[in-house]
Amino acid sequence: MKSPLIALLSDFGTKDSYVASMKGVILSKSPRATIIDVLHEVNPNEVTGPDFLLWRSYRFFPPGTIFVCVVDPGVGTSRAILCVRRESFYFLAPDNGLLKYVFAAPGGPGQRVIEVRPGKKASATFHGRDVFAPAAAHLANGRKMSELGERVLPRFGKEHFARIPSAGRGPVSCEVIHIDHFGNIVTNVRYSGENFRRWKIRVGRGVVKRHVRTYGEGGQEPFALEGSTGLAEISVKEGNAAECLKARLHQELILFR
Amino acid sequence: MKSPLIALLSDFGTKDSYVASMKGVILSKSPRATIIDVLHEVNPNEVTGPDFLLWRSYRFFPPGTIFVCVVDPGVGTSRAILCVRRESFYFLAPDNGLLKYVFAAPGGPGQRVIEVRPGKKASATFHGRDVFAPAAAHLANGRKMSELGERVLPRFGKEHFARIPSAGRGPVSCEVIHIDHFGNIVTNVRYSGENFRRWKIRVGRGVVKRHVRTYGEGGQEPFALEGSTGLAEISVKEGNAAECLKARLHQELILFR
Amino acid sequence: MKSPLIALLSDFGTKDSYVASMKGVILSKSPRATIIDVLHEVNPNEVTGPDFLLWRSYRFFPPGTIFVCVVDPGVGTSRAILCVRRESFYFLAPDNGLLKYVFAAPGGPGQRVIEVRPGKKASATFHGRDVFAPAAAHLANGRKMSELGERVLPRFGKEHFARIPSAGRGPVSCEVIHIDHFGNIVTNVRYSGENFRRWKIRVGRGVVKRHVRTYGEGGQEPFALEGSTGLAEISVKEGNAAECLKARLHQELILFR
Repeated sequence: MKSPLIALLSDFGTKDSYVASMKGVILSKSPRATIIDVLHEVNPNEVTGPDFLLWRSYRFFPPGTIFVCVVDPGVGTSRAILCVRRESFYFLAPDNGLLKYVFAAPGGPGQRVIEVRPGKKASATFHGRDVFAPAAAHLANGRKMSELGERVLPRFGKEHFARIPSAGRGPVSCEVIHIDHFGNIVTNVRYSGENFRRWKIRVGRGVVKRHVRTYGEGGQEPFALEGSTGLAEISVKEGNAAECLKARLHQELILFR
Repeated sequence: MKSPLIALLSDFGTKDSYVASMKGVILSKSPRATIIDVLHEVNPNEVTGPDFLLWRSYRFFPPGTIFVCVVDPGVGTSRAILCVRRESFYFLAPDNGLLKYVFAAPGGPGQRVIEVRPGKKASATFHGRDVFAPAAAHLANGRKMSELGERVLPRFGKEHFARIPSAGRGPVSCEVIHIDHFGNIVTNVRYSGENFRRWKIRVGRGVVKRHVRTYGEGGQEPFALEGSTGLAEISVKEGNAAECLKARLHQELILFR
Repeated sequence: MKSPLIALLSDFGTKDSYVASMKGVILSKSPRATIIDVLHEVNPNEVTGPDFLLWRSYRFFPPGTIFVCVVDPGVGTSRAILCVRRESFYFLAPDNGLLKYVFAAPGGPGQRVIEVRPGKKASATFHGRDVFAPAAAHLANGRKMSELGERVLPRFGKEHFARIPSAGRGPVSCEVIHIDHFGNIVTNVRYSGENFRRWKIRVGRGVVKRHVRTYGEGGQEPFALEGSTGLAEISVKEGNAAECLKARLHQELILFR
C-alpha cells in the first residue's frame, strides 16, 4: 500500500521550529504519511509569492497528493481555511489568494471546496500546527473531505497568462511574474511556438531580441526562451538576467515586432 | 509496521554535506527509519539556540521519536554524549546545555539517562556521523538504550518560564527568550489567562499596552498576545516587532500594571 | 522490502519550486522511493562545488543509493548526461566534471557508464525534471541501467589528494579545496599519521604550527587537525579560520618543516 503524500509549502523559513511542529502533528496523526517540503522560504521582494511556485510544481506530483499551504498573515482572524479537491489533488490553504493560479488552471468542473472548521482546541496563533496539519492527516488517513467542514461554492479564477495575438505587431503589454533562483525573468506570456521568435521584449530601457532554445545556447546578452512551464523567460548565460536588466517583480514588459 | 522516526537538529547549515553524511549512516544502519529535519540553521546572533526550538516542537512528534541534536562545538573533547529517554521520546545530545528546556519541562520521574560510549573507530572531529547517527539507528532498530553506554543520574533543570504574580502590580522582570522568523518577540513569561491583559510590557524605551488574540487582529503598533506555546509574545502586523522595538535576544523586559 | 533511496544534489536553491517538481516526478513514477536531500544551495564564491561535497558524503549512504546530481548550466546543449554505476552506487549527472572526485576515488574496475538518452518529450530547459528524475525513478523501480541509453567507456579521474613526502622537509605546495559552513579550511593533503604533526602550513602571511586532535581542543589561534574524511584541515576554536587567515578557495598553501 502506497503511503499518502503530503507536500508542505509555508513562509515559516528554515531557521525556526514551526515546520517541524507541523510535521510532528502530521506524523502523530498519520504515521504512514510521507512528507515532502515544497518551499518554506518566501521573500516577497525577490520572488513571486508561493502562489506561482505552487502552480508551477503541483502537477508533477502523484494523484492524491495533499498540498498544505500555510502562508497566512491573517491567522486567527475570520479569513476562511479552504480545502479544495481539484484534478485528483487536495489543497489546504487560507482563503487569501494563495490558490489563485491553481483555481485559474484549466481543469473543467469537478472542483470541490470545503470551508475547514477549526477544532475547539486550536490556538489562535498557529493554525498550521492546529488546523492545517490535522486536516492533512485526516485526508491522508483516507477520511472524507466533507467531514472537515461545510461545502461552499467552487471557485474559478481568471486566466493569469497571456498569449500574443496571432495577427498584428504589437505593442502587447505583459508582466514579470517571477524571478527565479538564477535570476531568470519569467513572464506571464505563453511562448507559443516558432512564431513567438519574431517578437522582441522591452524590459525597462533594454530590448531583448535574440531567441534561443536552451539556457546553455545563449550568450552574455539577455536572450528569450521558452521556460519549462511554457512561459516566455529572459535569461543570461552564467549571469543574472534580472540584475542585468534591473527587472523587478510585476514590472511591465512590452512585446513588439 | 510503522517506520521509526528520527528527527535531526544541528548547526551544520544547508550548504555543506555534514547532514547528508549523517542521513547516509542512519539509513545504512536502519533502512526503515524515516528522517525528519527539525533545524540545521542556527544563528546565535538572531535566534535563541536550538535548545528553545527543540523544546517548542518535540512534544508534537509521535511517541518513540528519536531526536538527534548535534550542536556540538566541543566535539572530540571529554564532554559526554547523552542519550535521554523522557516522556516516550529519545534524545541524543552533547552534555552542553542543549537539552536544558527538555530537562526542565514538567514530566515527573521516569527519565533515564545514558552516557553514550563512542565506538573505537569514531573520528575525533565528526561525532554526528560516527557516534550520534549510529546510536540513533541502534534505537530505531528497537535495540536497548542501555547497550549504548553507562547509566548516569537523571537530571532536572530549573524552570525556565516565569508567571506573573497573581497579586501586586509589578514591576516584574522577564526576558526575551527567542526572536522568531517573522520578528515576533517571544518572552519567558507564561500568558496566564485573561488577567494577563492588564499588564504592560516595557521593551527598551517602548511600552506595549495593547493585547490581542491573534497576529491578524493587531495593528502597526506593537501588541502582546499569547503565542502558540503559551508564552507571551510581542508582534506587529505585517512588520517585524524585534526591529521596531530594537529588541535583542536575552534583553530584559519589565512587566507592570 | 526496503524502499529505494534517491539522494538529490542540485544548485536549485531552497526558494524556488525546481526541487519540488523533481520530487513530484520521482514519486509519481516510483511511489516507493525515499528521497533524501543532500544539498541544494551552492555558492561558488564561498564553498567548493558540489563535486567535493558529493565525494565527502556518498560513501556513507546505503548500497544501491541513486545520486541525482543536477548542477547543470549547460542544460539543453549537447553535453551528455551520464549514468554511472560505481561501488554499488548509481550516479546521474551531467558530463561537466561534477563527478570528478567520484571518478578519482580508488575503487578499481567494475565501473559502468551509460550516456542517458533524453526522452522525446523532454523540455530543453529543465532536464532535472524531464530527464534526471525519470531516469532515477527508472533505476529505483529496479529496471536496467542499460535501458537508459548507450554504454560508453568508463572513466578514471586523476587523484585529487596529495600526500606529503615521507622524506625531505618541503616546501610542498597544496591547495584550499573547501571552506566549510564553520569556516574550517579543508586542504587537499591527506593527514597521514603522527608524522604529519611535524609539518607547518603557510596560509598567505600566516603560519599554522599547532596540531590538535579535535576542534574542541584547539584555541583562538588557527590550528591544524585531521578532518573527518582524512584530509588536513585548519580551524579556530569558536571562530572562523577562513576569515582569520583570509583564506580563499583554491588558494595555494605551503607545507614545510
